[in-house]
Amino acid sequence: MTVQDRTNQALEAIEQQRSHNIFLDVDADRSRQAAQAADQRSVPLGPLDGKLIGIKANLAVKGLPWTAAIMGLSDRIATEDAGVVARLRAAGGVILGTLNMHEGALGAVTDSPGFGRCANPLIHDYTPGGSSGGSAAAVAAGLVDFALGSDTMGSSRVPAAYCGVAGIKPTDGLIGRSGMAFLSPSLDAIGPLAQRVRDLWPILSALAGPDALDPLVQPLPRHWPTDPEWRDDLSGVRIGRPKQIDNVECEPEILAGLNLAIDALKARGATILDVDISGWNPGHARRGGLLLSEAEGAVVNAELLDGPQGTITPEFRQNLEFGRDASSSRLVDAISRISAAGAACARAMVDVDTLIMPTAPQRAFPHGSDVPNNQADFSGLANFAKRPAVSIPVPLSGEILPAAVQLLGHPGEDPALLAIADVLDRELETTS
Amino acid sequence: MTVQDRTNQALEAIEQQRSHNIFLDVDADRSRQAAQAADQRSVPLGPLDGKLIGIKANLAVKGLPWTAAIMGLSDRIATEDAGVVARLRAAGGVILGTLNMHEGALGAVTDSPGFGRCANPLIHDYTPGGSSGGSAAAVAAGLVDFALGSDTMGSSRVPAAYCGVAGIKPTDGLIGRSGMAFLSPSLDAIGPLAQRVRDLWPILSALAGPDALDPLVQPLPRHWPTDPEWRDDLSGVRIGRPKQIDNVECEPEILAGLNLAIDALKARGATILDVDISGWNPGHARRGGLLLSEAEGAVVNAELLDGPQGTITPEFRQNLEFGRDASSSRLVDAISRISAAGAACARAMVDVDTLIMPTAPQRAFPHGSDVPNNQADFSGLANFAKRPAVSIPVPLSGEILPAAVQLLGHPGEDPALLAIADVLDRELETTS
Repeated sequence: MTVQDRTNQALEAIEQQRSHNIFLDVDADRSRQAAQAADQRSVPLGPLDGKLIGIKANLAVKGLPWTAAIMGLSDRIATEDAGVVARLRAAGGVILGTLNMHEGALGAVTDSPGFGRCANPLIHDYTPGGSSGGSAAAVAAGLVDFALGSDTMGSSRVPAAYCGVAGIKPTDGLIGRSGMAFLSPSLDAIGPLAQRVRDLWPILSALAGPDALDPLVQPLPRHWPTDPEWRDDLSGVRIGRPKQIDNVECEPEILAGLNLAIDALKARGATILDVDISGWNPGHARRGGLLLSEAEGAVVNAELLDGPQGTITPEFRQNLEFGRDASSSRLVDAISRISAAGAACARAMVDVDTLIMPTAPQRAFPHGSDVPNNQADFSGLANFAKRPAVSIPVPLSGEILPAAVQLLGHPGEDPALLAIADVLDRELETTS
Repeated sequence: MTVQDRTNQALEAIEQQRSHNIFLDVDADRSRQAAQAADQRSVPLGPLDGKLIGIKANLAVKGLPWTAAIMGLSDRIATEDAGVVARLRAAGGVILGTLNMHEGALGAVTDSPGFGRCANPLIHDYTPGGSSGGSAAAVAAGLVDFALGSDTMGSSRVPAAYCGVAGIKPTDGLIGRSGMAFLSPSLDAIGPLAQRVRDLWPILSALAGPDALDPLVQPLPRHWPTDPEWRDDLSGVRIGRPKQIDNVECEPEILAGLNLAIDALKARGATILDVDISGWNPGHARRGGLLLSEAEGAVVNAELLDGPQGTITPEFRQNLEFGRDASSSRLVDAISRISAAGAACARAMVDVDTLIMPTAPQRAFPHGSDVPNNQADFSGLANFAKRPAVSIPVPLSGEILPAAVQLLGHPGEDPALLAIADVLDRELETTS
């Protein structure tokens, strides 16, 4: 099938699924032009050439509303592409449009007034998670080949888990964030999503590198490869299972999925070790990260906060005001919790290649039901530790909703982490 | 000379120099016992065995007042040794006592009411700098072989520079800080001082490693050596000279010293490159670090701040209150400045082994004169970037007060940094 056919098919499907509120704004004309150009190239630009891509609505797509699902920003039109969007276009990607998200990236449900309740393609009246709910849903629904999310404390990996797709939060500073409507510049990362782990590499590879407009972008790690050394087995690989998992209230199916993943890793030759991330209290650290996000979010969104009622929801306002009004000593405490979690993670990983833990303590849940507090208990650690983490779906026999685990790796070793996660992903696919 | 003879000589000299206010409290009995034990050992414990060591007064020395030069803590007696002090004792070190410092480690003069004005051994009514003024003065006066300081934004390197000795701020988390009266847990590091660069290795080596009571301690870098690969020349070594030096008002002698050091590096075969640490504004970042220090210091010293007037000086109180009362948005801004400086440093160092810049923009100045605001403009960068930096004195012909430069290295590569700094130190000694 030509790229143009695929693009037209996707645009039709998006139109038919309008009520699912996965896409917010569609760039039909430009998509068709990009598809045509892709079809006309005799030599493809690379693995992303002609691939269909959706972009979380907090990333600027030139000419489309740049809203971050905030009502007060409905009329803001992006005048430039975000750095990552420009890179994807340069790689031949077909940017279909912007994807729904939780208002302002602060929340994990993706059900925002003015932007609609985003469906989970696995069970339509369930949440896709958030804040990158639309990004995971678009991949799960087959509307796109790839999506960009963002990840502050799990905001791309939790939706990946809820929707049964793969997602990565890369090493901090690996991917530039210019043109992103930040929630928390200290914790935010670009988080690509795709159907399978191995597909995360071409997009990560295209996005990693310099960004003159992101002050926190880091140099590419030395020895950054053209491709990861993909593996057939995991012999010699050491994977730590943190004891702290037992301190977080998890759905039984999540623990069953974790055990399936551990069995799959063992079947491929990995060694599983119990590790104690001494100094990491998941809930305690998560609350620290939340306060920092709210404080940084209040600075980022200061104009909206000072603006008229109704431009942001009362809940978003309340959270930002909580951050804005936090005392110096509370912020110092939050920083201390985050730093301690990061250092604890580094100490616990000296003798292992990755950690394994659930991505979230629960699977997707019905829209409108109570939101669990502990959604980001596990996923926040990678942001606090500035380390990469990959979420991998774990199919459960007889269940529509999968479980999910994340593998957390060493800073700058995103390619090696993907190579391990890929083996797990394929093993789970085979055995399910 | 026996260790006992050296110890007794040092104790006498300390007593004779009481009015210099270098030592605060002396542990004469225990020093003599340690010296006797050292003399009786047929096989030395290592390179620190029998060496005379002084400890900054914000580090706990069991049985001595643990004051951090804060009047309200005059009666606090340490019930345990700080982790670093215990390590030095275990290595055979003779801990002579505690050293004067700037009140609460917040300031760079070392002239605190109740603890006296610390002399600079080079010119007695000049400041030794601070906050580790007593530590640098004790080494410069020959009262000790080694001293421990602490370094928040240069607090061990600036005094090293002012007193003409060597000092290192190690990679963050390399040396545990249990038993330290913090100013800023996010920025504080243990900073060893010695006469010469090469002497910094045995003390760094003895102190690096686990500390169960410091939540931010990091694992030892992989391939941590028994000894650095000391060098005879610097061929193949690339050293960056930041353009930002030109934006800081420096004493002419400091720039002359920088040029001498650059000539010495070239003479030993190093390549000097101009680098732009784009995103690092020295004064801007330093003010961010200062605010974070004041905010964290207000939490650390909350009891003193809430206590009666007179337990801390009005100046210290004012600075801590400034941090305590800082708004959330100001703290967010401070964090952003610090993170941006650190990332800028990482980007600028991709193609160089170290940076070179002055340790401080000025040499020591008379006690009682105006204190320059920009003392920590250069030195703060290593704390913000979590990287190691070594200060090396640069003798100036016909001048009592030397200049000083610092070399700033890659995280965890403290041994390689010391090996480069050692060549510079010896070259400058030879040519002066």
